[in-house]
Amino acid sequence: MAVANLSISSLTQRYLSVRAYTEKLCETLETEDFVVSSMPDVSPTKWHLAHTSWFFETFVLRQRVPGYEPLNPRYAFLFNSYYVQAGERHCRAQRGLVTRPTVEQVFEYRRYVDEQMLKLLETIDDDYAITLGLNHEQQHQELLVTDIKHVLWTNPLRPAYDPRRAEYSSATPLMREWVDVPEGVYRIGDDTGGFVFDNERPAHRVFVEPFRIGAGLVTNRDYLKFIEDGGYRRPELWLAAGWAIVQGESRRAPLYWEKNEGEWQEFTFAGMTPLDPDSPVSHVSYYEADAYARWAGHRLPTEAEWEIAARTLPDLPRLFGDRWQWTQSAYVAYPGYTPPAGAIGEYNGKWMSDQWVLRGSSIATPPGHSRVTYRNFFPSDARWQFTGIRLASK
Amino acid sequence: MAVANLSISSLTQRYLSVRAYTEKLCETLETEDFVVSSMPDVSPTKWHLAHTSWFFETFVLRQRVPGYEPLNPRYAFLFNSYYVQAGERHCRAQRGLVTRPTVEQVFEYRRYVDEQMLKLLETIDDDYAITLGLNHEQQHQELLVTDIKHVLWTNPLRPAYDPRRAEYSSATPLMREWVDVPEGVYRIGDDTGGFVFDNERPAHRVFVEPFRIGAGLVTNRDYLKFIEDGGYRRPELWLAAGWAIVQGESRRAPLYWEKNEGEWQEFTFAGMTPLDPDSPVSHVSYYEADAYARWAGHRLPTEAEWEIAARTLPDLPRLFGDRWQWTQSAYVAYPGYTPPAGAIGEYNGKWMSDQWVLRGSSIATPPGHSRVTYRNFFPSDARWQFTGIRLASK
Amino acid sequence: MAVANLSISSLTQRYLSVRAYTEKLCETLETEDFVVSSMPDVSPTKWHLAHTSWFFETFVLRQRVPGYEPLNPRYAFLFNSYYVQAGERHCRAQRGLVTRPTVEQVFEYRRYVDEQMLKLLETIDDDYAITLGLNHEQQHQELLVTDIKHVLWTNPLRPAYDPRRAEYSSATPLMREWVDVPEGVYRIGDDTGGFVFDNERPAHRVFVEPFRIGAGLVTNRDYLKFIEDGGYRRPELWLAAGWAIVQGESRRAPLYWEKNEGEWQEFTFAGMTPLDPDSPVSHVSYYEADAYARWAGHRLPTEAEWEIAARTLPDLPRLFGDRWQWTQSAYVAYPGYTPPAGAIGEYNGKWMSDQWVLRGSSIATPPGHSRVTYRNFFPSDARWQFTGIRLASK
Amino acid sequence: MAVANLSISSLTQRYLSVRAYTEKLCETLETEDFVVSSMPDVSPTKWHLAHTSWFFETFVLRQRVPGYEPLNPRYAFLFNSYYVQAGERHCRAQRGLVTRPTVEQVFEYRRYVDEQMLKLLETIDDDYAITLGLNHEQQHQELLVTDIKHVLWTNPLRPAYDPRRAEYSSATPLMREWVDVPEGVYRIGDDTGGFVFDNERPAHRVFVEPFRIGAGLVTNRDYLKFIEDGGYRRPELWLAAGWAIVQGESRRAPLYWEKNEGEWQEFTFAGMTPLDPDSPVSHVSYYEADAYARWAGHRLPTEAEWEIAARTLPDLPRLFGDRWQWTQSAYVAYPGYTPPAGAIGEYNGKWMSDQWVLRGSSIATPPGHSRVTYRNFFPSDARWQFTGIRLASK
Repeated sequence: MAVANLSISSLTQRYLSVRAYTEKLCETLETEDFVVSSMPDVSPTKWHLAHTSWFFETFVLRQRVPGYEPLNPRYAFLFNSYYVQAGERHCRAQRGLVTRPTVEQVFEYRRYVDEQMLKLLETIDDDYAITLGLNHEQQHQELLVTDIKHVLWTNPLRPAYDPRRAEYSSATPLMREWVDVPEGVYRIGDDTGGFVFDNERPAHRVFVEPFRIGAGLVTNRDYLKFIEDGGYRRPELWLAAGWAIVQGESRRAPLYWEKNEGEWQEFTFAGMTPLDPDSPVSHVSYYEADAYARWAGHRLPTEAEWEIAARTLPDLPRLFGDRWQWTQSAYVAYPGYTPPAGAIGEYNGKWMSDQWVLRGSSIATPPGHSRVTYRNFFPSDARWQFTGIRLASK
Repeated sequence: MAVANLSISSLTQRYLSVRAYTEKLCETLETEDFVVSSMPDVSPTKWHLAHTSWFFETFVLRQRVPGYEPLNPRYAFLFNSYYVQAGERHCRAQRGLVTRPTVEQVFEYRRYVDEQMLKLLETIDDDYAITLGLNHEQQHQELLVTDIKHVLWTNPLRPAYDPRRAEYSSATPLMREWVDVPEGVYRIGDDTGGFVFDNERPAHRVFVEPFRIGAGLVTNRDYLKFIEDGGYRRPELWLAAGWAIVQGESRRAPLYWEKNEGEWQEFTFAGMTPLDPDSPVSHVSYYEADAYARWAGHRLPTEAEWEIAARTLPDLPRLFGDRWQWTQSAYVAYPGYTPPAGAIGEYNGKWMSDQWVLRGSSIATPPGHSRVTYRNFFPSDARWQFTGIRLASK
Repeated sequence: MAVANLSISSLTQRYLSVRAYTEKLCETLETEDFVVSSMPDVSPTKWHLAHTSWFFETFVLRQRVPGYEPLNPRYAFLFNSYYVQAGERHCRAQRGLVTRPTVEQVFEYRRYVDEQMLKLLETIDDDYAITLGLNHEQQHQELLVTDIKHVLWTNPLRPAYDPRRAEYSSATPLMREWVDVPEGVYRIGDDTGGFVFDNERPAHRVFVEPFRIGAGLVTNRDYLKFIEDGGYRRPELWLAAGWAIVQGESRRAPLYWEKNEGEWQEFTFAGMTPLDPDSPVSHVSYYEADAYARWAGHRLPTEAEWEIAARTLPDLPRLFGDRWQWTQSAYVAYPGYTPPAGAIGEYNGKWMSDQWVLRGSSIATPPGHSRVTYRNFFPSDARWQFTGIRLASK
Repeated sequence: MAVANLSISSLTQRYLSVRAYTEKLCETLETEDFVVSSMPDVSPTKWHLAHTSWFFETFVLRQRVPGYEPLNPRYAFLFNSYYVQAGERHCRAQRGLVTRPTVEQVFEYRRYVDEQMLKLLETIDDDYAITLGLNHEQQHQELLVTDIKHVLWTNPLRPAYDPRRAEYSSATPLMREWVDVPEGVYRIGDDTGGFVFDNERPAHRVFVEPFRIGAGLVTNRDYLKFIEDGGYRRPELWLAAGWAIVQGESRRAPLYWEKNEGEWQEFTFAGMTPLDPDSPVSHVSYYEADAYARWAGHRLPTEAEWEIAARTLPDLPRLFGDRWQWTQSAYVAYPGYTPPAGAIGEYNGKWMSDQWVLRGSSIATPPGHSRVTYRNFFPSDARWQFTGIRLASK
């Protein structure tokens, strides 16, 4: 798919680059790795590869290309995720049971969609649905990586995804502990006019009382102190629903941590490795983030506080590229929010219950997919993403 | 327990009146009715009677009366609800399986605690824990009523709780549809210094964009139009989690509604009755309230909007006494929130995840237990409370 | 209901006596005790009282009394257990949630059915359906006792059902350990022509190889040796399905046994008591009986072996009146078995899968309800009946 | 692995032939097909390939070859099925989540074990454990085929396993409907001294009353009449547990049957095909077999009846090679049964509860693996094997 045409549009360039990046993420995988779903949240790698192509087929090619012929009409059923208005779809719980199309056939499907898209892209310069499709594929790039990490961890042999891949950005030193932000009416949400998801709009005003925010992320070293201080044995530190899980599952540490012969290890892209104390803590649930904050005598920021801090203090270390940061804001619509019409309106709006907003981005977020208004969201007990902790304080 | 002592303190008077009101709510019940739990959310009547007494015993008598002897030391295990720091407790799921102590013995337990409390009340005028205990008992008065309604409905014979008891206040006419509230920084939360729950504090400032709020509650007549317009068959109106329930349980109406031979009926305090079109709709989940609002082209208010409207427009009809009103605000801590130390700090704080705030009060709320800062909270699918809908609009 | 009429028929006498015995079993209960179902296998006491009356109403009065008017036509829905051909019925899982009719109303229902039955009995001397109804009620007498034992045990206060009631017959001494039965073709099953359940017929021939059968029942003393020898920790002693339960539920002893401060106790009709070593072991599942037998180097008898032994050695100790004895025979039809036509044919035939035959009778079996051909049946993990162990060997 | 050594032992020949046959069954599969488990009963193809090798490694090589070095010591954990005495093992429910070792690595594992086995086979002529291992592998050959059929059916695309493969033997005509077998004491079970599974021994005597047995198997044509006569809507035909499933899952036909636009189709090795009326009915549960027999006015044979008929009438059509035939005999030990000592004793004995014996063999049974004493066993609701119906009658 290498292309060296000087006259190629920037949208085409972006299309080629995003699509190629997805496939690059699969380079270290065996055919068998593409097939499995290790828990309900996790989709098989080959499903991600196909679904992102289905997205372009459904929301771009079928709309724009008269008489468009799909490669296989049954793929629409197999690779629709949750767009009720886009037709019937395969049950999510069974995604990991479908062995055909094979991995090779899924790559053929990608090539087929790419050919059609490239033809179409010759005729247009800019397009909301295509840009959405690229951002959508970038979101699945992150899911692909976090999902395959979980799949491999489920295997008692604990194979590595990619030993060359780091789990945090090493550069930024921690300079100081807290920064103060004064009270006031601030504006949050997007008003740039550029591409953002619908849920980042409209921009609107919020009042915040004065607050402090952590100048870095909580590290494994910090979190170990919480564990060693009985963090997982003291109900007074926990939300009731979190405590029920800690008790019911005998939880004692973040996901992927294991104590072997007295030594803490964690499962990383490089397989099982000794716990790295300097790494920002990862794979903690909202319950764990909240309990840690209470134990530390602080709290989690709201999403408004996070965005205000990020806007006013853009040099705040580790805002982006290390860990998604839990906020204590539930994921709901901004005042005046309106989703687009049709199936595409299901993208964000219908998930606005029982989830928390996470801000920033993570080590698994693809390049060019972070911004200050970005609203990620997961339920209270999600742990398989690279989720971490930034503290706030009154 | 009739008392006619002129010198009796107002706290004692209040104690006597609250405790008597609880027992009055049981007047129409048979002994058998006190025993059963019809679903995990529902506690048996006799458990409510005992647990509210245990609360005084644990948080007042054991703290204040030297050498206090409980009537039965095992009751502390049976009647602790969820206060982990107050000791081991009986499994909630088994509350409805405990036939002893009998109803008569539970009333004896109430009398025993009352005697001790009255003795103690001779010596004190004011006390946070006692006032909390009375407010706690008032909350259980509402639960007792909504729980027994569910228990009786579970019986195929559908016996009535109390045919004389209305399900809405008839008085208030609907005067106009919407009222406008201007943008601005407002103060919400309690700063009266009087008794409120910890979660109503601290008072703090919020900014709201200009909004409109409904001058009344959505009625059964209104809600029927939503049903007849295919409300329960159109996925685009629903949050994803709500739609999954609608599909999975084939839901077609609020809890307690039934269509018999083409006629809508509802189960009320008077048993099965024809649906009353003038009644504010009740027993709807957050999902249903949200879907209705979307269908109507509007939205639910935030809790800040609700409180600001209630403060600036205290004559707004049906703020209190008919239906709890779902807001689109997740139940989280106010900035600067601090729960009290010890077991009593578990009262509100540990529930701050995966619940929505409801404002106002309902037909089942006991007299004297409503206020403009009150924050009730239930999860997205709770329907057995008297929950209704007040709309807001951009 | 005492009757002293010399001319009363023996069927009437039997009717009066069986019906009175059921009510006598409830003498020590509180009203609250009648309402609850502590697990899916357990029915509320008041349900047993009503269902046995419904049986006479449905299979006798409605068939025989022209224009029979039931006391309450809805009771047919509430108190049908599982007779699909007798009409719709209430969901078994919800039996314990129905508070009305009250206990007093259920007793009224019994009196109403009794009056109608006594009138009918003046006109007839013998009747299969009435005799079946009386045997049916006797089966429910045993269930009533074992069910209420479970209900009371579920209560952390562990109230006693009836301290005067023994859990085994003290009389019979153990004379010798084994008796030998020679090989041969034997006849088993009923050919007396008297009342038996359909599943005891037809009589037919079986061949048995020579075998030995235990001359008594395994005692608590014996069973403790199995426990102390690691019986519950040695997978090689267990059927796979039984071992999965032992592991999954961390089982260490029969139902109702508890080790408190180093001492074994058991829950009996008299509440928690020290374990009685001379008592035949009780409340063991098929899995436990089978594992014990394997540990002891023996096996469980087949039902044919049991019946042949009981017929040829009628003095074999503890055949009846102490513990139901697990056999290694699955509950299936005898060759040539034909159930009666209609709903009454559902009595036994439709349960012939995934159950084991138990032979003999137990301390909870009412007087006059035991015989050598009786086939009781329960699934592999049932433990709440008085089930024990008689060994067989090669 | 083709070998043409004239001096090769017959055990070696048999080893090579059985091992090769397993791999031949995989010829039509894609790599992805080897990975998935479509329901708890189904194991991935690659697990079957590895587990059968592990069996030789564990019960032959580790016992016989001093200093035996396994290819990968972790495979013992991954590929032990249920032999508790052979060490810890991977959770069965997670078999389908393990992507490594890859399919290629599993074939390497087979080659490694084969090399070691062939070396060992040069030194021995006969061996119980090796013969057991070969019979074990043959059982897994049948499971491999029935499992992959289920995996492929789970895929909405319904890919074919092997269109050239028939689902029944065409040859045998049905000659007459019933054959009569006289009463008598017969001997069943194995006394040949040759290899059989432990559960086929000891031979022993049984008495059977005179009976008739069907001279062929029930066909799809026959079974359709049952369906069209309301077989799946008439509770009086069903065992209670079967009826609960029919109701709960809205069952209307055997597994793999589908009615599309008024036409019955079935999923076969060739994918979805029109229902073949001449095919023996397949993929019916015990409940369905039993209900069909009741509807037809007959019953299922006992295993003794089946074996006696097969011994006395060896020309009875379709005894072997078409469908396993449900019997109404529960799977329990023969009198005098003794399993071998150690882990290998877990092979058959620990499954003797809650299963029915099936006799004969099926289209999926490998050549040379059928005999008159063979006792297959499955629980009441198993349908993914090639299970069919032979009737018996009083």
